[in-house]
Amino acid sequence: MRSTLKLSVAAIALLGFGATAASAETLDEVMKRRNLSQKDLLSAAKTYTPSGGRDEFIAFSSGGQSGQIMVYGVPSMRILKYISVFTPEPWQGFGFDEESKKILDDAKVDGRTIQWGDTHHPAITETNGEMDGQYLFINDKSAPRIGVISLHDFETQQIVVNPILQSEHGGTFVTPNSEYVIEAAQYPGVLGRGYAPLSEFNEKFRGAVTYWKFNREKGRIEPENSFSIELPPYTQDLSDAGKLVSDGWSFTNSFCAERYVGGIESGRPPFEAGCSSNDTDFLHVINWRKAEEVYKAGKVTMINNHPVITLQTAIDEGLVFLIAEPKSPHGVDVTPDGKYIIVGGKLDTQASVYSFEKVKAAIDAKNFVGKDAYGLPIIDMKVALHKQIALGLGPLHTQFDSKPCVAYTSLYVDSQVAKYDYCEGKVLDKISVHYNIGHLVAMEGESTKPKGKYLVALNKLAIDRFNPVGPLHPQNHQLIDISGDKMELVYDMPVPLGEPHYVTAISAEKLKPLVRYKYGTDSRTGQDHADAVRPGSEKIVRSPGKVDVYMTAIRSHFTPEIVEVEEGDDVAFHITNSERAEDETHGFSVSTYNVNLSLEPGKTATARLKADKAGVFSFYCTEFCSALHLEMEGYLVVKPKGLAQQAATSPSEGRSYTKADFDKQYKTNNDTQAVIDAVVKYITSTNFKDFPTVVALVEDATDQLNFAKDAKAKTDAAAEKQDWQQATLWAGQWWQYQVKAADIGLRAKTFLEQNGAKVVAK
Amino acid sequence: MRSTLKLSVAAIALLGFGATAASAETLDEVMKRRNLSQKDLLSAAKTYTPSGGRDEFIAFSSGGQSGQIMVYGVPSMRILKYISVFTPEPWQGFGFDEESKKILDDAKVDGRTIQWGDTHHPAITETNGEMDGQYLFINDKSAPRIGVISLHDFETQQIVVNPILQSEHGGTFVTPNSEYVIEAAQYPGVLGRGYAPLSEFNEKFRGAVTYWKFNREKGRIEPENSFSIELPPYTQDLSDAGKLVSDGWSFTNSFCAERYVGGIESGRPPFEAGCSSNDTDFLHVINWRKAEEVYKAGKVTMINNHPVITLQTAIDEGLVFLIAEPKSPHGVDVTPDGKYIIVGGKLDTQASVYSFEKVKAAIDAKNFVGKDAYGLPIIDMKVALHKQIALGLGPLHTQFDSKPCVAYTSLYVDSQVAKYDYCEGKVLDKISVHYNIGHLVAMEGESTKPKGKYLVALNKLAIDRFNPVGPLHPQNHQLIDISGDKMELVYDMPVPLGEPHYVTAISAEKLKPLVRYKYGTDSRTGQDHADAVRPGSEKIVRSPGKVDVYMTAIRSHFTPEIVEVEEGDDVAFHITNSERAEDETHGFSVSTYNVNLSLEPGKTATARLKADKAGVFSFYCTEFCSALHLEMEGYLVVKPKGLAQQAATSPSEGRSYTKADFDKQYKTNNDTQAVIDAVVKYITSTNFKDFPTVVALVEDATDQLNFAKDAKAKTDAAAEKQDWQQATLWAGQWWQYQVKAADIGLRAKTFLEQNGAKVVAK
Repeated sequence: MRSTLKLSVAAIALLGFGATAASAETLDEVMKRRNLSQKDLLSAAKTYTPSGGRDEFIAFSSGGQSGQIMVYGVPSMRILKYISVFTPEPWQGFGFDEESKKILDDAKVDGRTIQWGDTHHPAITETNGEMDGQYLFINDKSAPRIGVISLHDFETQQIVVNPILQSEHGGTFVTPNSEYVIEAAQYPGVLGRGYAPLSEFNEKFRGAVTYWKFNREKGRIEPENSFSIELPPYTQDLSDAGKLVSDGWSFTNSFCAERYVGGIESGRPPFEAGCSSNDTDFLHVINWRKAEEVYKAGKVTMINNHPVITLQTAIDEGLVFLIAEPKSPHGVDVTPDGKYIIVGGKLDTQASVYSFEKVKAAIDAKNFVGKDAYGLPIIDMKVALHKQIALGLGPLHTQFDSKPCVAYTSLYVDSQVAKYDYCEGKVLDKISVHYNIGHLVAMEGESTKPKGKYLVALNKLAIDRFNPVGPLHPQNHQLIDISGDKMELVYDMPVPLGEPHYVTAISAEKLKPLVRYKYGTDSRTGQDHADAVRPGSEKIVRSPGKVDVYMTAIRSHFTPEIVEVEEGDDVAFHITNSERAEDETHGFSVSTYNVNLSLEPGKTATARLKADKAGVFSFYCTEFCSALHLEMEGYLVVKPKGLAQQAATSPSEGRSYTKADFDKQYKTNNDTQAVIDAVVKYITSTNFKDFPTVVALVEDATDQLNFAKDAKAKTDAAAEKQDWQQATLWAGQWWQYQVKAADIGLRAKTFLEQNGAKVVAK
Repeated sequence: MRSTLKLSVAAIALLGFGATAASAETLDEVMKRRNLSQKDLLSAAKTYTPSGGRDEFIAFSSGGQSGQIMVYGVPSMRILKYISVFTPEPWQGFGFDEESKKILDDAKVDGRTIQWGDTHHPAITETNGEMDGQYLFINDKSAPRIGVISLHDFETQQIVVNPILQSEHGGTFVTPNSEYVIEAAQYPGVLGRGYAPLSEFNEKFRGAVTYWKFNREKGRIEPENSFSIELPPYTQDLSDAGKLVSDGWSFTNSFCAERYVGGIESGRPPFEAGCSSNDTDFLHVINWRKAEEVYKAGKVTMINNHPVITLQTAIDEGLVFLIAEPKSPHGVDVTPDGKYIIVGGKLDTQASVYSFEKVKAAIDAKNFVGKDAYGLPIIDMKVALHKQIALGLGPLHTQFDSKPCVAYTSLYVDSQVAKYDYCEGKVLDKISVHYNIGHLVAMEGESTKPKGKYLVALNKLAIDRFNPVGPLHPQNHQLIDISGDKMELVYDMPVPLGEPHYVTAISAEKLKPLVRYKYGTDSRTGQDHADAVRPGSEKIVRSPGKVDVYMTAIRSHFTPEIVEVEEGDDVAFHITNSERAEDETHGFSVSTYNVNLSLEPGKTATARLKADKAGVFSFYCTEFCSALHLEMEGYLVVKPKGLAQQAATSPSEGRSYTKADFDKQYKTNNDTQAVIDAVVKYITSTNFKDFPTVVALVEDATDQLNFAKDAKAKTDAAAEKQDWQQATLWAGQWWQYQVKAADIGLRAKTFLEQNGAKVVAK
């Protein structure tokens, strides 16, 4: 009546249902049913990516106040991954394994544990101003911090805390060879996060910009080789690094140059009124290369053990210059050739295009119109401007096309994107977006070699664009095709988590992430893990009040499976995933504890807990890794204090096995082996070596069959001793490895059939 | 040379760039460039959803070990929202505001704070077995808990902890009128989470199933009206509730009926071998309606203050029956008519279809083949079966079509979905998926009225399907069109966060979430918030060591803006978002503190912090809410202990204003008003009342203009007193409200133009 898997593998394989057939509905019928226009169909064709297809670009999006990074493909606009940076996230084990807890410990600010971040501007490492796809940086506005993510494994590996800022915004922006990661302040504070009354705002409050030194070989920011420059208490905003002709310089704008402090509760108009009163604010033009020399020469003041070039030194050494920029600016963006700096003023209608050549000439000639209240030289805006181009209401940020002189600026109030020629000062096209666009991103659009093709509008409001999901709406990232003369809106992507600010997008081919780790890697450092063990060397090490479990994980069991400890012990599980197969991640949870690990192939991670209460706690793999995934379990036995001296006891047996049981299982295994042999015969008869996916599967299946061989040896040894209990159970384990091998083999067979493999041998 | 916004609104409006134009590329060219087949184009047409379009179904997906719920649209497969349930998430303020912290405090297990969950099976409330879209439930496997999410606002409002289980898996499944939410154990434990050695596994370890009473009016589970039934230490797995003819019954299957305890470290074969030795495990058939009577009659044992019907009582009262089910089952699913129960055995090749009528007849006739080791009566599998249908390797879960007798079962080992007629026992179609499918979901496919049309395959491995993003891969949810005779794979959706287990999908039209809250709502309870204030009633209340700030938030300022406290104070910010406009959410962060709020329109929430260090901490809105969003800021001034007795001081002024400044601003405002009047004139000349979106925008703009009027009154009053500082600044604020009104008005104008509004009046 029933037939278990072992009996009918071959029979099922012969059922031979075809994978495809003609759809009942024609294209016209589908378009009519779904109310699609020809233009919609064209947009669908431009974005739809069939199963197994690849996106041309990968976008790294700020996750806003989610504290994470969102990764999506362009043009499919499918979200591929969230990377935890400042916020603990259990799927990735981030903030749950001891290795990542160290990163979050380093991320404390003034002793406070902060379990979120307000991420704003991601930046990818650059070589000669071109994106190279090695590392990714992201800032936290609320607690002034920078996260460093390795694009080798898409994991956060470092968080550094700014030693002097109270909040920040103008990060992260990299210099053209990623020598420095730029982080500029937002709301003025007392440098070093000290106290001063607001009545001394003008005297004691300051802004600053920090240049974090990046060591590319180590993949780490080096706080000990980083420095800051003190700035006036204008509310610094976005930044950008010069490139090519302007390499060595950086640009940071500001709003509230009025230095207004609100107080609506005491009858003062609010910040928004007093901070938007002037017609202009200040662009800070900074010679960072010269500042680096000044820092290296030791002309710094130490604040919280961090070297700061004071305003006076900056003036004396000629490091910082100001230029007026129109009303409450938001974005400052350097053109791909480094020749121009484009600023959008939120309450302006124009893109202001500054000429670096003119700025440099004014500085060299000491052609200044005056000084600000702090003594910084001011360059005349009229002298510095190349052009101002009327675009529309609320210009914010600018990105660049692969076509020379073509830029795109977001218009917040108009809910539009303007395309224009910044060399000639001519508007070329405009398109409406939905609604209230903040940043926008073109492919590698902030580098020296923009790739054109696509632009994404990061709209702050979605309002009516999607199915309703409650008062808290998704954001709306809209994909715009910019390959033609006219911009074409082709896709609306809801952002389901967080409010992204900026996105950076890189050609997918530049990313070469790992598939698996070198055996026993601590992924949070990228180094060998001291507590990794090889299969066969697993152990439990006890010392007073402390138990260290050195464990391996493989489809579908942990070794060890039973861990006995005493109530009150500190228990550490150091677990290595001994798999090699792509995507064979294991998890690890201990029931009712705040513990979850993500163990990708080759990774070692540690889960730590306090055995605070006697009990028997199941642990299990939290990733569905195999047919017997649910059986990948074990028990943490926490013995009550008084019982601790008792010897460990054997588990009771739920079932006894006889020779007949053994013979039945043995026969099953032989039958299953015949099926596996048939699959192997098919695979090896084809040109399977032309398919890297299948080669990897064959490698994995071979591993499983080797494990099966080991289990068979144990089976035979127990049978030799007529221990039918052990013999039957080990025969069962041998069969489990056969099932895994069959699973993998069938996947390989299907892949070959669906991808046109040829039979090359009989 | 420069022209700020105020000067050129009208000019820009006249530029008149068209929104669309023919694309340079034809459809054929796009298909050729992107290597799309005609079949791909058809799939694109079936899934692509143009800007502003709606999905037909909304899927609620388990977030696996992310501890969240993922919400996406079908067929577009766009993720609309992540809902935090067990894991704190700052964008939503969940675990960061005091209101949600209370929910997470209730979610502690045995005193342990657990900041994640291993979510498995979501369920939507049902009425007469049909989904009604009011509430959503989700379980946590690792710490046995259930989360309750209100679908009125898509927020988690309750988490209950199971008082007796150590871990669970078979939840959540609702009875046909959501009387109960079913939660069954996973790994056996000592009921009440006590200790016993593994040598007493068979005697002291147990499973159980809990029936959580749901109060639909309150939208809450009532632990005081809930009960459990003790079960043998088989590893209970999935459950389902009977419906229609089988209403009043529930079904829970199990694996490891061998009751094997592993111990590979001591030479015992691992769990996976000993737990998969038998050819059959046990399906538990439970008369929950009768059990409810037994519970109400008080025939229970209290464990941890929770009523448990013991195994012996269950036997004596005839509540629980066993039926053999094939090798290591995973899914148990009741057909829409309630007549059949379909079980898939992971190591089997068939769907086993049990007839409820036959099961019931056997029970009524006491037709049993024996008892298990615990005395539970066993129904002969042959007697209970309707059919067994050979499907393929590793059948797991089953979903149902709108067509009678048609079911879909996932085949894990084969990486396929089988479509078959379970009445006749005939396989109809099979399709390959990529790869190793776990659950699958059809639209309302577990209810009494499945909607057909679409099926989603929840594949556990993606391997090569997407652009690589490191060793940790996304899962792959594949959309299958089931409207025709043959299944058609139409879309691959990467899952970027967590490993979903089950998904439940409902017709979008059944969901009617709120757009805004009633003014002053505590969203975590759904009730009025005691600390809400109206604009004008904001206040700071001080008591020794404690400061309560009652604040409002509106575009673009908080009231109050300056909050002075003393070092060491406990500070609570109770903030109400006084907006009415859809999607006008404000955030609230205090720099370097672990604080973030999400304040949707009408919501009140509390952020609490310890002012542990003197300093001046900027606070700001973390949602980009308006052009002057960055200016939506304030300062928390933490005065050093010794300075506490000093009087508050006024902020220093960064700039002084003269009558000339005032006159200039006044003129600007009058010019801006002229532009606004022109926009208003256009809108009111159209049939704008036919567009609800525009009506809402007009309402919002009217609010802003009323605020502008208030600010103008303050301006005029200060001018009267010749206080040019105040007068100029208030005139600035008046202008800010004008800018907001213009922003909204322009959005409304664009909407009308793009949606074919007609001019109806001159």
